[in-house]
Formats: sequence, structure tokens, C-alpha cells
Amino acid sequence: MDDEDTFKILIATDIHLGYLEKDAVRGNDTFNTFDEILKCAKQNQVDFILLGGDLFHENKPSRRCLHSCISLLRKYCMGDTPILFDVLSDQAVNFSNSKFPWVNYQDENLNISIPVFSVHGNHDDPTGADGLCALDLLSSAGLVNHFGRSQSVERIEISPVLLQKGSTKLALYGIGSIPDERLYRMFVNNQVTMLRPKEDQDQWFNLFTIHQNRSKHGATNYIPEQFLDDFLDLVVWGHEHECLINPSRNEQRLFYVTQPGSSVATSLSPGEAVKKHIGLLRVKGRKMNLQKIPLHTVRQFFIQDLVLSEHPDLFNPDMPKVNQRVEAFCQEKVEAMIEEAERDRLGNPLTPEKPLIRLRVDYSGGFEAFNATRFSQKFVEQVANPKDVVHFIRQKDVGEEGVDFGQLLSHSSTEGLRVEDLVKEYFLTAEKTVQLSLLTEQGMGKAVQEYVDKEEKDAIEELIRYQLEKTQRHLQQRGVLTEEEIDQEVQRMERGGRHLQQRGVLTEEEIDHEGERWG
Amino acid sequence: MDDEDTFKILIATDIHLGYLEKDAVRGNDTFNTFDEILKCAKQNQVDFILLGGDLFHENKPSRRCLHSCISLLRKYCMGDTPILFDVLSDQAVNFSNSKFPWVNYQDENLNISIPVFSVHGNHDDPTGADGLCALDLLSSAGLVNHFGRSQSVERIEISPVLLQKGSTKLALYGIGSIPDERLYRMFVNNQVTMLRPKEDQDQWFNLFTIHQNRSKHGATNYIPEQFLDDFLDLVVWGHEHECLINPSRNEQRLFYVTQPGSSVATSLSPGEAVKKHIGLLRVKGRKMNLQKIPLHTVRQFFIQDLVLSEHPDLFNPDMPKVNQRVEAFCQEKVEAMIEEAERDRLGNPLTPEKPLIRLRVDYSGGFEAFNATRFSQKFVEQVANPKDVVHFIRQKDVGEEGVDFGQLLSHSSTEGLRVEDLVKEYFLTAEKTVQLSLLTEQGMGKAVQEYVDKEEKDAIEELIRYQLEKTQRHLQQRGVLTEEEIDQEVQRMERGGRHLQQRGVLTEEEIDHEGERWG
Repeated sequence: MDDEDTFKILIATDIHLGYLEKDAVRGNDTFNTFDEILKCAKQNQVDFILLGGDLFHENKPSRRCLHSCISLLRKYCMGDTPILFDVLSDQAVNFSNSKFPWVNYQDENLNISIPVFSVHGNHDDPTGADGLCALDLLSSAGLVNHFGRSQSVERIEISPVLLQKGSTKLALYGIGSIPDERLYRMFVNNQVTMLRPKEDQDQWFNLFTIHQNRSKHGATNYIPEQFLDDFLDLVVWGHEHECLINPSRNEQRLFYVTQPGSSVATSLSPGEAVKKHIGLLRVKGRKMNLQKIPLHTVRQFFIQDLVLSEHPDLFNPDMPKVNQRVEAFCQEKVEAMIEEAERDRLGNPLTPEKPLIRLRVDYSGGFEAFNATRFSQKFVEQVANPKDVVHFIRQKDVGEEGVDFGQLLSHSSTEGLRVEDLVKEYFLTAEKTVQLSLLTEQGMGKAVQEYVDKEEKDAIEELIRYQLEKTQRHLQQRGVLTEEEIDQEVQRMERGGRHLQQRGVLTEEEIDHEGERWG
Repeated sequence: MDDEDTFKILIATDIHLGYLEKDAVRGNDTFNTFDEILKCAKQNQVDFILLGGDLFHENKPSRRCLHSCISLLRKYCMGDTPILFDVLSDQAVNFSNSKFPWVNYQDENLNISIPVFSVHGNHDDPTGADGLCALDLLSSAGLVNHFGRSQSVERIEISPVLLQKGSTKLALYGIGSIPDERLYRMFVNNQVTMLRPKEDQDQWFNLFTIHQNRSKHGATNYIPEQFLDDFLDLVVWGHEHECLINPSRNEQRLFYVTQPGSSVATSLSPGEAVKKHIGLLRVKGRKMNLQKIPLHTVRQFFIQDLVLSEHPDLFNPDMPKVNQRVEAFCQEKVEAMIEEAERDRLGNPLTPEKPLIRLRVDYSGGFEAFNATRFSQKFVEQVANPKDVVHFIRQKDVGEEGVDFGQLLSHSSTEGLRVEDLVKEYFLTAEKTVQLSLLTEQGMGKAVQEYVDKEEKDAIEELIRYQLEKTQRHLQQRGVLTEEEIDQEVQRMERGGRHLQQRGVLTEEEIDHEGERWG
């Protein structure tokens, strides 16, 4: 099928370059896998690479991360191999945000062998007054073609990049990440328009790339497939990390959806445990074929659930030494998973040695949790996540005991939760008990602003930690114990803060003025 | 003289891209001037551009700054103009730190018309475990040739980049910025070696680029010219911002030194008021010629000193309404400077409209300072620095009244002092009176660490501000007034802090542990 009329497109998404890059064990994972992906594109002599967003994990990637990315793109995507397809659309429209508004392979000063087309994701979206994102550094250097950027926040008109190889015509549509609720509303209000070429409409293969929630996170916090136009042939869905790359047919709209999934596990949840793949898409005329390609450099990840109350034969809370029995059982489970990972890795020299292992233990029903950190530490030589191999959950009585901030914070730092997840979790959990009392509006506002500006990725974590420690020390000092007393104390501290401010050297105006000076 | 044997080299340094980039008036200055410099190189059809360090103001330039820099380099330095000189040295040695260890114009995938060679400065020096600097992002993208990087911190061997154009042989030496004391020591201990080509040594023109203190900041806190080898022909000295571009002869070593100076004023000091230039260096055989080229996009800067006690005819401290007289006189002075700037700008459409104006008023001898901010604000429509047109100094009694933190901090924020200057100034000034009591060792250590890692450029400023505000509020609340009482209060606070820590929920060990978790 590889003839002069067939587009060969390598499809990947959510590569999350730089994820955990400071981790001694996992630090190189994302770069190794990006290397594998680019090498695969080169070996398969694809016409181009299509990325579905979140090439970078951080909105402001570290220098090392940018440097590695630039070097890899220059190594694999530049060279003498001729490009065998043309661009028919108005490139000044397709790439209107770029200072060099044309595809990189047509730039006479660059020798591009594999063009990369990418939309941006929610991790590497445009920010700031200039509306630049990390991809734009790559596009200004001529290494990536960043498409699917909307000019307006009220209305989206998607002008496809029209490509032709031999007799095959491919219309490439894309939307870079937009907050789900907003995009949902725009679809509902008919403010999203996909433009189509005027002539020979039915001869085009219509490929659409989107980076949004596909699974329903809330009434309007996702994009239903049926919102999309039915003239599409294939949708490449980014953002969702579970590999569901085999195209599934939407029976209402009669198009196919492929969800390549991330090429790195950024959380230890079941979806990430599905084996990671990229796709080799062939398009000839209106026909397509998607070949799954397994990624060998991806660290293995095995996850299992254990519900203690479902094993009354093995243990119940009233047994003597039940804790030791549970812990021993968990150890057997973990060791079995490690062995399974070892067998599975045989013959795959590219796969990192230490797997990710997660045992989720539901200890509802009167069981006690043992020390998860100490337990996990036993496997420090065998697993890549020796801080959190075991994770205790309680299906039935979550929330009864109020907020365990220590757990909450430790959780986020070890699992690499995204800050937005942390904040969401904080608000959800904290709502019932302390109702934001620990965080002053001013402090939270400032932290959120800093976070929004993406200048200070740790701003919110730092603030929460600071307030938590301050409060803990204060409460300890006063020997407060009951919940009621805690509430009173917190209110007292708040009043005190306001009081100091009112009486202090600095008036509110002066504080604002100070803030501006230091802004 | 522009023939096939003549190297034409554009020489510039300390461009400080991104300096004050968020300032509404001055934000584009550095980018406009970099544009002018590159345009000038193109118009003069130079063979290459030589930069003396500090291309970037920030160690971690903002996205906008990197994006602008990349775009400008791609715009001006790529194209079809052929490069007419060869590299004779071992490029794997010259560019051993690069993943692409060869000059960019010999890369078959890049069409370079003007190669840029640069050492790094102290503002954009390599940091972190990977030893990367901002220039390395440009070099990985093939836009700059970063040379003069030392592999060792104990010993430097400089292998020159050997270039030949027609019959002219040019040996290009360089050392990227190194802390002055360390480099001084290395020179004294004979640990700096400049390698020379084995054959035809006397046929080479030897050009050396250095980015260090040239003026003596302390016994060993600069590099004396006579430390440099006498086989050199010309030294291009970066780091020093005053334009002293006309080559001066070192009579001991018999080489010449040109100090191009920065292309933007990053402080309102007299050296920065000297008109800014870049150089067009021609080298043919062992002969050279350096043509000064004035920069038209540079914002004008006029500075004047006024010592009140030197005008007993006009005012003395005992006169009635002496303050008004002084202020009126200052206003006349400032207006005269503004007029001078206007006349000077006539016929230079590229020069920004609003000049930088600084009047330094020495009010020693019993005079009072008036409100400098309110005074400066009068010129908001006419000057680019409407917060600090006037600056009060007191030659005779500096330090008598202890530390004015507000002044210190406001000073740094408005004048764009570097953080290291701020810290130095803080320690110098604070030593006598408060002896670091306001800053806990722990806090300062953490902030310094963050600063050293260059991840958090505001860490130290933030800490000082936080401690200052906390202390001010506390002192105000308690109504402390005398210096002795302030000392006592500060000590009490320190003890209290330790006490809380000792009694608190968290032991020191736990705090350390917390710190690690959040590190």
C-alpha cells in the first residue's frame, strides 16, 4: 500500500517531555520515548508526524527539556529525504500566529526531512500577553508546524491545512486545547465552524485533531463525539492517557476515533497501565489503515486492586495480628506483580528495568492501614516508585474524618499529580471541614494569579504548605483539640490578620502599592 | 579594503535581551537594538558576528525573549549569502559541549548566511547538572556557535577556532564568564593556557574574547590586562557596560583592547550614559581596523550630578523655604536635560522618544531630601524613568542612620539592580545594625540555594520583603521605637521562632523531612 498516492503519518500524543525529569530513576523516560517515536517515524519513512498536544509536560519547560527536544527534532527531522506532498491551502491563514507563516519544509533555509504538525495541549497551552506557548519556540526555530490555534475566544473557524500527495487529498483540521466548558458552550452555540474546500468536497480525507476530555467529567466538562461534524473521516483524540488507539466507529456521526493515549504514565491509575502504542496511519484516497506500533522504551506499569473485606477467609479485623497478615499478603501480591513485569520484559532490552507497581488496598470495614512508605521502601531495588507501591483507599467512609492534609500533600508530591488536580482535590476535601479558612483570600488570589500566569508552578503548593505548617504550629502551641475549637482558632487567626493589617505600618492601599512595585 | 582576504566582523556585547521587558515604555528596547545590530551586520555583509557575552539579561530568559531572539536570528542570519571563510581547527574540540559539534554554517541542513560566535556572560552562564545555558538552546537550534566553554573548573586550555579567509588567518580565542576571583587565581597559578597552532604562528591574527571585570573591583575581583598572553593582537572585552570601543593599546603586552560596552543601559550610572556603539572590525593579514558604528535605537540617557553644598550662593540649609528653592533648581536642571535630549534626537527617527534622565543630588551638609517619587512623576510624559529621575545621595554621612530597607528595596526594583547586587548591598548595609537578625539562617539558606540554582530569581527579594513586612508589622504593633528596643525585639522574635519550633508539631527532623519531600 506504500505507493506515491499514500500518505504515511505517524500519530502520537501526550508525550509529556520533562515529566519527572528530576527523578533519579525515571528522569529520562520521556526523552527516551520521544527518541523512540522519532526514530520509528524515520525508519518507517513517514510523510509527516502528527502530534495531539502536550508534547511538553510543563507550560514552561526546563532548559534541559527544551534543549533535548530541540536536539532530537534536529537529529531526526532534518535531512535530505525529499518531502512528497504539497500544501494547497493558504498557509498565511493556517499558521497565522507564526512569524514564519509557512510549513517548515518549504522554508528554503531549512532542510526538513520529516515535518511535524502539532496542536497544543492543556499542559503546553499559550499564556501571557503574547499568547505564546512552548511549541512556538520550536516553530520559530523551524522545527515544528504549530496549527489549530484559534484567534478568538468567542468563535472558532478552523481552516484546514490542505495537503496533497499524488492523487490523495488530505484536509488536516485541529483545535489546540481550550477549557472544556468553554469549548462545550461554543459547540452548543454553533460557534465552532469547520471550513471545507469549495471544490471536490467528497474527495478529501478529513482528519481532525483535538485535545480535550473525551470521557464525561461533568455535564459540560468534556466534548461529546457527536458535537463533531459528520464529514470527518478520522478524529485523533489527545489528552486522554489511556491507549485506545484502535479506531472506534461513532455510529451517529459515522466517523472513526482513535485515542493513541500518552506515551508515559503521569499517574498510577488503571488507564495508564494499558500498554502504550503509537500509530502508523496510511491514507489513500478516502481509505485508511491504522497500524498499532508498541513502544518499547515505556516503563512497565502494573496495577492491582485488593479489597480486604472481600477475603473473609483470609482475614477479618478481629483476628489477632491481622495487620501482619494483611501486610504479608500485600507483599506476596507485589512480588507477583514484579515477577510478572520481569517475565514480560524478557527480550525487550529497550524497556527500563524497574517497573511501576501499584497495589490499591481498600481497607474499609474496620481494617487498619499499615505504614505504606515503609512497606514500599522494601522494593526500592526492584521498582521505579519505591515511595508509593501500596495505596490505601476506603470506599465506604471517605470524608468522615475530615481532611488529612499531610496525606493530601504527600500524595501529590509522590504521584506527580498536576497542580490543578491538587487544588481541585484540596477544595473538594477542605470544603466540608475548614471552608478555606486556612487560606486567606489575598494569599490564595495571589497564588492562583501566579499559577495562571504560569510563572510560578509551585505557587499554590507552596502557599498551602506554608499555611498548613503555620496553622499546625499554632494549633499545637495552643493545645487545641476539638473540631469546634479548631474552627474558632482559625477564625481568630483570620480576624487577627485583618486586625494587624488595619493597625499596621502599611495601610491596605500601601500594601497594594507595594504589591505593584513588586509585581 | 573589503577584498577576498579581509575578514569583516561585527563586534557587539552585553545586549541583555529581555532587560525590563515588562516595562510599558522600555519593554522593547533590547529587542529593537538587537534587530538594529543584526540588520547592520547584514547590510555590511560581514563574515560573522562576534558577541562578548550577556546576550540574555536573565539566566532563564522568558518565552517571549527566547522567541524574539530565535525569530530575529532566523530572519537575519539565515539565507543564501555564501560564507567565504573556512574552519581549520578541530571543531569537535572547539564545540565539544554541543550535540552538534561543528559551526552552524557547515551543517548541511541549515542555510546560514551570517554565523554568530558567542561566549556566554555572567547573566547567561551555564547552570544546573547539565551545565546548559540559554545560548545552548540557540546552538542546539543551529542559530549560534557557542564557544569558549571550559570543561574544567581547575584549569583552562583554550583551543582557538582557527578561521581562514583568502590569505588571512584568524585565531579566535574566548573564555565564557567565570567568577573573577576564580579566574584571577587560575591566571596567577598558571592554570590558563592559550593553545597556539603549531605552524606559521606569526601569520595568525589572534583575537580574544573575554567577559570579566576589567576595572578593579577589589584586589582579585577583576582580570588585569597584563595577565593575558602577549601574542594576542586584539582583545574584545565584554561585561563592562561603558562604551570604550576605540582600541586602547596595552603598553606592557603590546596588544589592543576594545570594550564595545552594552547596547542598553541596565543601570542609571555615568558609564551607561556614554553613547552606545558597536564595531565593524576588519582584519587582513595581521592588520586590523575597527570602525565605530553608533546605535540609533538606543534610548538616550543623560545624567548630571548636583552637590548642594557647592552652591552657597543659591541655597544653604538655614534659608527660609530652602526646600522649595532646591526643588525648583532641580526642576530646571531636569528640564534642561530633557531639552538637550530632544535636540540631540532630532533627525534620528529610530531613537525612542522618551529619554532616561537622572539627576544625582548630594544633599550632605544639613539639607533635606524632598519626595523624589513625587518630583519624578512630574516628568511622566517626557522621560522613560518617571519613578526615579532624581536620586539623593549623601557623601558624608552614609550609614549613620542605619538601614533604610524601604529605600533599599524600592531602589532595586526601580533601577533594575541585579539580585546579587541587592544581596551584597543588603549584607553590607545591614551588617552594622541588625546583623542578619531579621533573616533566619534557614530561610536565607533556602533562598540562596534557590537563587544559586537559578530556578527562582526572585527568591531572595521575596524573602527579604516577607521578613521586612513581618517585622515592620510586628514592631508597629508593639510600638517599639528606639534602636535598642528594636534589637531586643528582633532577638525575642528569633528566640520565639526557635521556641515554637522546639515545641511544635514538627521536630527539626520532621521539618527537614518535610523540606526534602517538597524539595
